[in-house]
Formats: sequence, structure tokens, C-alpha cells
Amino acid sequence: MTGYSALPRPGAAPFTERTPRVVAARKLTRRAEREKAGRFLAEGANAVEAALTHALEDGGTVHELFVTERAAAQHERLLATAREAGVPVSPITDRAADGLSETVTPQGIVAVCALVDRPQETVLKPGAKLVVVLVDVADPGNAGTVIRVADAAGADAVVLAGDSVDPHNGKCVRAAAGSLFHPAITRIRDVDAALKACSAAGLRTLGAHGYADTELDQVSFDEPIAWVFGNEAHGLPEHVLGTVDLAVKIPMYGRAESLNLATAAAICVYTDAMAPRRNR
Amino acid sequence: MTGYSALPRPGAAPFTERTPRVVAARKLTRRAEREKAGRFLAEGANAVEAALTHALEDGGTVHELFVTERAAAQHERLLATAREAGVPVSPITDRAADGLSETVTPQGIVAVCALVDRPQETVLKPGAKLVVVLVDVADPGNAGTVIRVADAAGADAVVLAGDSVDPHNGKCVRAAAGSLFHPAITRIRDVDAALKACSAAGLRTLGAHGYADTELDQVSFDEPIAWVFGNEAHGLPEHVLGTVDLAVKIPMYGRAESLNLATAAAICVYTDAMAPRRNR
Repeated sequence: MTGYSALPRPGAAPFTERTPRVVAARKLTRRAEREKAGRFLAEGANAVEAALTHALEDGGTVHELFVTERAAAQHERLLATAREAGVPVSPITDRAADGLSETVTPQGIVAVCALVDRPQETVLKPGAKLVVVLVDVADPGNAGTVIRVADAAGADAVVLAGDSVDPHNGKCVRAAAGSLFHPAITRIRDVDAALKACSAAGLRTLGAHGYADTELDQVSFDEPIAWVFGNEAHGLPEHVLGTVDLAVKIPMYGRAESLNLATAAAICVYTDAMAPRRNR
Repeated sequence: MTGYSALPRPGAAPFTERTPRVVAARKLTRRAEREKAGRFLAEGANAVEAALTHALEDGGTVHELFVTERAAAQHERLLATAREAGVPVSPITDRAADGLSETVTPQGIVAVCALVDRPQETVLKPGAKLVVVLVDVADPGNAGTVIRVADAAGADAVVLAGDSVDPHNGKCVRAAAGSLFHPAITRIRDVDAALKACSAAGLRTLGAHGYADTELDQVSFDEPIAWVFGNEAHGLPEHVLGTVDLAVKIPMYGRAESLNLATAAAICVYTDAMAPRRNR
């Protein structure tokens, strides 16, 4: 411990945007700095709560919690949880909080956490029932929303493959609403290697594709499955479609040509997750 | 027609942000002006194409098409369709296009259209099989995404009830990716009246609610259904939950507490739409 109590000391001047520890934390809004430090920022009450639970229950690490006066008053229970987890809490000014935020409406509560992604061999292994693979997904909000959907559906893991966005990006963390700390997360630069690792773990690979012959309502879900989704604008590359076990199309019953990535992923992953439990 | 050919006249100076017709169109980025004029802006190739198809096939009205030089070169086929539909096309500067856009990346092609919503009695009537009702939905991007999902699932209608956002908002139009012109759309300020109109049309009303007793995988979908979704932050109000025929919860198989509005709506509406077609 560093001499900080879990509640900001009464009368202690809050850190400003020029305080060295805030300056260091602010650098974590950049991907290269996150990689170098092995740390990222989890902003907002949802994300901070999930980070602290992850630290208390699953061996995750929260290095520090920054909180504005207003947020401290709103989130007393979270600060108590931080104390329980042995996490130093530092008061910051509103302006310092703005600098640590990558979103339009800073929430005034930000945790500095150890990166959550893990080596692929500890994530993709036999026994996994449901895995989500994102290939070249560019928008951090989309990636975060899909991680949240994967968590809700009980996925064992999320793989960020190819040129996909860093899951520790602030907009991704925010969109994941705490779920970044739930499924196991791994990053695999080589897409073919990612698909091979899924197959080796006993997962059938299904690629979502708007022009596939097989429609989602014709697929049986009696095997462990890795769902593979492509870039928002371009979908899955040809070579990936040639590699997956089956390409699957969401049926279009109306006149829309397609769905966006997050809603398409939600439909595919939940149709799969609900199949064995369905009342029919 | 007004003397404009469907392709901008070679050598004609494009309209600027100060040209009266562009100034008048720019006012349509405000809700009150849209209501007064009975017109709205459909920006981007997807939306413009859907607007023109709507005009050619379903009696919709496109009053005018504004296009930058660059967008005109990219979308020659769309300009030909505009000519076929008898829609005047006016060249505009990039700066004028910026002023007509409510999005970060203006696409340089914007149609001035008649509002698409219709009186409720022409929209909610016996024979409808699938309807989506949004109650107090605040974010236009969410509303547009749900309209796109409803279209893809073959919904007959989308009802914007209570304090919901104007579906003609530029961000909603963009997120709907053309689908704003597909399902019938109506706005009903009084939520109880909206639910009564659904019931009178023979629809069973299902309210999505995170704490409902009935889970989605236990629901049978052998009747026409109106899905009712609430505000992003607060969900459905108590009095609405007391009024719907059944409250339904999406099962949470992992540790996420909830899903966002668009992904929740996608899962509910598609589970319903696929049920009668499912291969089991």
C-alpha cells in the first residue's frame, strides 16, 4: 500500500491533470502506451465494479482508482469494495477526469487495470462450448458491444483476430459495460492461426456472411461452436470464408439488405445459446 | 419540374451553404422545422436509394436531391434513378453538404423527402404479424438500428411511442440504413393508446424487461406479436409493464447484467421471426 486510504483523505487536495500519476494514466488512452505499460483504463461505475470483482475473485489486478468528489459521493459502495481489494483510491479534479476519459460524458471514476487478454493456449482449449471470433473489427464500440453480448450468452472466450481494435480501448471498455472482465479474451494477429486454434479446441467454426447458402434457422447447434464475424464494412475476407467449417446467413424476411455487426452477432450467438434450452 | 436536369448541368455553379434552398434544407436538421415543413433529410447512398425506391414503388415523395461533385461521380446509377423518379438534382459544394449532415462523415448525397410516418389507424390493423413498439427511446442511433432490425425481421410496422425520438432525425435515418422507408412507421404520443391499438389489431403485446419471470426461450410465437421496448437507461415504465400481455426476459447465461437496447431488440424480434421457420 502507498499511504492512500480507500476513501480520499478529507481535505487532501485532489490530483490535477498535471499531477505525474494522472499524466502517466492519461497516456494509457493511447494503444502503444497501454502495450508498453501493460495497463489500461476502465472508466465508469460498471467497468470499475467489474474490474474490482475480477480482482477479488479471479486474480485480476487493479493498480489504482481515480475518483472525482462527485463520483465518490455517488459510489460509496464501490470505494468500499476497492478498500476490500486493497486498491489505492486517489481523488482527482473534474478536469483530470476529463483527460482520462475517451467518452463524451466522463463519469469521474476510472480504474487503472492490468490488461485482461491472455495467451491463446490458456483461452482456446477443449471444453469450450461457445467462442466469438472478431476478424478485423475496427470500431471499438462495436467490439465492446459484441463482448457484452458474448458474456450475456455465456461465451467462454472472445478472440480479437487480425487487425481488430484493441479491446482495452476506452470506447470498447465503455460499450462492454463490465463484460470485458468476464469471458476470457485473447488477441491473435494471424487469422488462420486463430481458426486453427478453435478447431483444435474442438469447436466448429461458423462464419457469418450475408451471401451464405445456409440460413441461421437451418443450423443445428449440438456441437461446440466458434462464431466468426468480420469487419463492419467489408465482412469476412474470402480466405476466411474458405476456411470456416460453414458460412451462415441471417435470413432477411423484409427489405433490409443486412444488419450491423452488433445486432447480427447478437442474433447468431443467442440463437446458438438458446437452442439446447428452447421450449419446443 | 423546375428546369434542373437529373444530372447537374456541366459548368453550373454548385449551390453553396448560403443558397436559399440549401439554407431551407439545412433547417430540416431541427425537429420543429421538420414538423412545420413536413419534410426531412435522408443522407447517404443507402438512404437515398431507399427513398427513391419508396417514391417509385410505394407512393413516397422525394422533393429534391442534393449532391456534391464527388458523390455524383460515385453514384451515377442513383442519379439515373432520381431522373426516372422525376426528382430534381442540384449540385452542392462540400461545405453545403457538411451543413446538411448530422453525422461526422458527410457522404455528399442528401435527399429532401416527405415525412414517412403515417396515421396509426393505417399502420396498426388486423393482419399485422410482427410489430415493434419503442417507448421513450431517446437515442436516434438506437431507434434507427431497431428500425433496421425490424425491417430485416419482416416487421409490418414500427411504433414510436411516448417521448421517443423523431425517426426523421439524421442520426436515426443513417442508422436505419434505408430501412426507415420499409416498415410502416407511426408515432403515438400516448403509450396506453399505442398498446390498445396493438391489442385491437389482434397483436399479443410482449414487453422486454430484465426482471421478468418468463424467459425468451420459453415463449411460443404462434400468435401475431407486438414487441415493446423501453428507454435505453430506464427500460419500460411500471405502468407499461402492468399493461402488456406478458413481460419477457432475455436469459443471461454469463455474468453480464443486461444487454443494450439494439442487441436486446435484435434477439427478441429475430427469435420471434425465426420461430415458425426453425428446423427442429
